[in-house]
Amino acid sequence: MRIVRYAVGGVRHYGELESGDARIARFQGDPFTGLTPTGHVDEVGEAVILPPLERPRIFGFAYNYASHVDETEREVPDVPVCFMKPSTAVIGPGDAIVYPAGGELIHFEGELVVVIGKEARHVKPSEAHEYILGHTCGNDVSDRVVQRRESAFGTLLIGKGQDTFAPLGPVIATGLDPSDLALTTRVNGTVMQSASTADLLLTVPDLVSYLSRYLTLLPGDAIMTGTPSGVGPIRPGDEIEVEIEGIGVLRNPVVAESL
Amino acid sequence: MRIVRYAVGGVRHYGELESGDARIARFQGDPFTGLTPTGHVDEVGEAVILPPLERPRIFGFAYNYASHVDETEREVPDVPVCFMKPSTAVIGPGDAIVYPAGGELIHFEGELVVVIGKEARHVKPSEAHEYILGHTCGNDVSDRVVQRRESAFGTLLIGKGQDTFAPLGPVIATGLDPSDLALTTRVNGTVMQSASTADLLLTVPDLVSYLSRYLTLLPGDAIMTGTPSGVGPIRPGDEIEVEIEGIGVLRNPVVAESL
Repeated sequence: MRIVRYAVGGVRHYGELESGDARIARFQGDPFTGLTPTGHVDEVGEAVILPPLERPRIFGFAYNYASHVDETEREVPDVPVCFMKPSTAVIGPGDAIVYPAGGELIHFEGELVVVIGKEARHVKPSEAHEYILGHTCGNDVSDRVVQRRESAFGTLLIGKGQDTFAPLGPVIATGLDPSDLALTTRVNGTVMQSASTADLLLTVPDLVSYLSRYLTLLPGDAIMTGTPSGVGPIRPGDEIEVEIEGIGVLRNPVVAESL
Repeated sequence: MRIVRYAVGGVRHYGELESGDARIARFQGDPFTGLTPTGHVDEVGEAVILPPLERPRIFGFAYNYASHVDETEREVPDVPVCFMKPSTAVIGPGDAIVYPAGGELIHFEGELVVVIGKEARHVKPSEAHEYILGHTCGNDVSDRVVQRRESAFGTLLIGKGQDTFAPLGPVIATGLDPSDLALTTRVNGTVMQSASTADLLLTVPDLVSYLSRYLTLLPGDAIMTGTPSGVGPIRPGDEIEVEIEGIGVLRNPVVAESL
């Protein structure tokens, strides 16, 4: 099932995107407390597609594809390298990534994103799938200049956490095996990243298990699993697309900040 | 006013802690959408005092007192060094800090915590006070072994983000000038940290302004302002107290994790 969050007439709903992508079967409720079919069908053309999660906690992982570790000229880490992006960074499909006024080098990072469905603590990798609602596409937009300055002191927030730096969507795909999905990132139609999630160093079950060893994962949490090689700069006027097999295309324009 | 969040008979309320600390004047609502006096008074002895914020976003700052920078044998950073602690790390006054089963070196860090009252973006330091609801005490509990391993790769999450690693409370003090407050941390009654917030390198208005330059602060966000010198280890059986002038004492026992 491909779960979509959307608004019609200013009212927000979750629904199931029907095959052909033209219509949405409207649900009552949300995927975390329970979805009930309403029998009502909305036209995609009349809906505003929203980010699939409203102000989620976002956990991100870095250096989780060997190909990307190589291009950063680093060693593969001896510890999972993780951080948070604030909920206010989230935007949905079609929303603009705002290129900050003082930005010097902003990069896209196409990523598979895990959506947690149930509270999870001390979960084994073999049990992780029971706690996962589904998967979506994400773009871990990164301000490299700020990132490098922060990371030199051992932390990372503003480099990854600015408003609009976490596009998510277009749907939460349930029942998808995340172990070998094609991931493609395009800038203005040109393929920049092309990889498979089979190349993740720490797999989706590993990541869920690792976080849950130390902290309680909550329904609606998003885990960005890391980016493969091919990252590069974005500029105002660009259009960035992250496409993952079985999920769809997350498409966002880039606009300059106006102060 | 000292705002306290508490439960009586399993129902949660905000209230005003009366002078003498024996009674609470109950409010309807919350400090972010509006507090209305109810006329009802609860006895502190019959109430469970809760963390003053429920699952807040927590932004933390590191190396923000020269005395602490000195003891870590680092240079004063040339960029604000910030990170997030997950909401699930929050515990309230009297709740136990859980010493993780695999923990090797866990430290306390007494800190002044800012509570945001209004959505804030692009706020000047001179305007910051308009967006602050008040201040509380916090303990930025840190797993130094994990912290060092993560920070070597430029990020920080598990080292600061484990469940129970963010004690907050006991009250949100409003109308308090944060520029020169005495801060004391005691372990089993022995003073370990004794400083003034006058020694903060980046002041409270600086921190609010800095974050809001890049991201939207939301009502209920907590900003941990950094710790002075004197940090040190905690062990199961210890009792940690963080006391800040005009706010009160945040007291938490330490217990071993039972798996």
